[in-house]
Amino acid sequence: MTAVDFREADEVEKFVASVEARSGPVKLAVHNIGANVRFSVADTSERVYRKTWELAALSAFHFAKALGPRMATRGEGTLIFTGATASTRGAANFSAFAGAMHAKRALAQSLARELGPSGVHVAHVIIDGPIDTPFVRQIVGDTAFEALRAKGGLLDPAAIAQAYWALHEQPKTCWTQEIDLRPWTEKF
Amino acid sequence: MTAVDFREADEVEKFVASVEARSGPVKLAVHNIGANVRFSVADTSERVYRKTWELAALSAFHFAKALGPRMATRGEGTLIFTGATASTRGAANFSAFAGAMHAKRALAQSLARELGPSGVHVAHVIIDGPIDTPFVRQIVGDTAFEALRAKGGLLDPAAIAQAYWALHEQPKTCWTQEIDLRPWTEKF
Amino acid sequence: MTAVDFREADEVEKFVASVEARSGPVKLAVHNIGANVRFSVADTSERVYRKTWELAALSAFHFAKALGPRMATRGEGTLIFTGATASTRGAANFSAFAGAMHAKRALAQSLARELGPSGVHVAHVIIDGPIDTPFVRQIVGDTAFEALRAKGGLLDPAAIAQAYWALHEQPKTCWTQEIDLRPWTEKF
Amino acid sequence: MTAVDFREADEVEKFVASVEARSGPVKLAVHNIGANVRFSVADTSERVYRKTWELAALSAFHFAKALGPRMATRGEGTLIFTGATASTRGAANFSAFAGAMHAKRALAQSLARELGPSGVHVAHVIIDGPIDTPFVRQIVGDTAFEALRAKGGLLDPAAIAQAYWALHEQPKTCWTQEIDLRPWTEKF
Repeated sequence: MTAVDFREADEVEKFVASVEARSGPVKLAVHNIGANVRFSVADTSERVYRKTWELAALSAFHFAKALGPRMATRGEGTLIFTGATASTRGAANFSAFAGAMHAKRALAQSLARELGPSGVHVAHVIIDGPIDTPFVRQIVGDTAFEALRAKGGLLDPAAIAQAYWALHEQPKTCWTQEIDLRPWTEKF
Repeated sequence: MTAVDFREADEVEKFVASVEARSGPVKLAVHNIGANVRFSVADTSERVYRKTWELAALSAFHFAKALGPRMATRGEGTLIFTGATASTRGAANFSAFAGAMHAKRALAQSLARELGPSGVHVAHVIIDGPIDTPFVRQIVGDTAFEALRAKGGLLDPAAIAQAYWALHEQPKTCWTQEIDLRPWTEKF
Repeated sequence: MTAVDFREADEVEKFVASVEARSGPVKLAVHNIGANVRFSVADTSERVYRKTWELAALSAFHFAKALGPRMATRGEGTLIFTGATASTRGAANFSAFAGAMHAKRALAQSLARELGPSGVHVAHVIIDGPIDTPFVRQIVGDTAFEALRAKGGLLDPAAIAQAYWALHEQPKTCWTQEIDLRPWTEKF
Repeated sequence: MTAVDFREADEVEKFVASVEARSGPVKLAVHNIGANVRFSVADTSERVYRKTWELAALSAFHFAKALGPRMATRGEGTLIFTGATASTRGAANFSAFAGAMHAKRALAQSLARELGPSGVHVAHVIIDGPIDTPFVRQIVGDTAFEALRAKGGLLDPAAIAQAYWALHEQPKTCWTQEIDLRPWTEKF
């Protein structure tokens, strides 16, 4: 496990180069980074607005620049970007997060159109709902977490991974560019 | 194999009842019906406009009414509706087809929200591109068909089936409501 | 004032011909027809599903066929179609209404692309909220109606007309195809 | 006329304060800033990606923070954000521009929902087509420019202003949040 600051182009490039030197060509890479923050525009500092974008969008750009051309040269590979409901809708008090996630989705769309003809599969996945992780348990509290789990309201990480893997396994003649994932109990 | 006119509610209901009497509860059902027609509004007859809607939308409604409540009672099942690019965009000369396909997608969305909480998974799949079938070969001609196939421009029916099956296999905590499928060479 | 059944192509054609014979070329025409109904798919009869589509979509098709070619020949004219939130979203219990309104919007889009190059301006307007009319008062009741009006929650018909007129007044070099209209207090 | 760097929060705040000190409360403000750049992701430098976002999105954020709360306190005012086709679609070779414009639109949506209930009208306008300005003439060349103008393919700035003004004139009970503007000859 290596800690890499994905806001730094050089770090990302070096990380990808070292991974490929050690383990061979990356076949599938997933960009999950994104930090949800909740403030009205008036209460959002420039620092928060900027950092939110750097975490979700600039890091995705570095990720794309480091991996996309390598995969395009090899004529294969899958890049998956994780989005959220905020990727397609600017709700009240989410301008920083929605702006960053909208930008990430725009990147995924541009990439899909640029790299698809080179054999690189680019997909964007909207995760809509809480995930069954210690992080979410901590945020919502034990009681709410157990109640959510009891009614099947938590996305199982293994099921998410299965959906991502299914995208990677799609043959070139049958690619998906965008999916949504949510628990059966989630309002949408 | 049975020929059923899906524009007729009674025929659809009888068909579903007989299938279930013979083979047990339907777990997965796919609605593929839709007839693409290409006319300007001025050149579209009422007969064509009406028939296109009956084939794609009314038949989907009968399909949903026959299967949805059965699945909801049992607390499980998957209904998949096949769409097209015209499901989300009204191009010139496609008002009849786009209208019918938009209506089908609206039905799929309403159903997903109505039946999801009962454990029924409803999904809509946009197929964007020519499929590797005798029907498409006949329409585009042998030469164009072989050229498309050579460059990987034809959707493989087996790969489409794989994607539909992956939707059916999703656990309740991680459902997809909408995907697109297209060959890597397709402009979009 | 003339009562015309817009589900009947002949009636619509005769009506438009008589209006033009009496008053000259129609410059601006608005299609408002649409009947909101609320039923689960299971509780929607075929009659309701079909009639809802005939009222909102088939009537719009007849309207378009009667007026579009006349305007295209003259190289000018405006056709406006009134939509609703259901035009872009299939909510639970609105499959009939959403299907019909989706189909209407698809028609407006196809028409805009077909007739625009002939100088005919086609626009779709999504009205999102209750309108200040006796009809709405009757539905929601006097108390709720007055409360809505007091907080500015009712769309003023004159303001709607103003927005439609502004679309008609747009020069050919600067056309809008789609707008939304809602009270400042409406959630969206 | 004052030159203000809208990427700098302090400059924007001072500028707005001085305008209001001199001329009274701002009733209508338009954010037009955005620099279209065209590069594949591989050829986009971090500097370009970052600057494009700062110009279109960060500047809009500063604009919103300086004007939004002032207008909300007064219970009135209009903020209009100018977008482009790239605001809703990530085309090949436009990841930087599309990312920035998507973020701007997300901001406009969040603001509309946050400030609407305080009486502030927030709208987003998608301009789709070349504008009749010396800047566009310079980019496309005299011949192409005159040809575009001859066929009515250039958006008239006065007509754009008229559309923006119409948004500002809308009463609170009948607001539009999003419109598109394009010449009648523009493909879309």
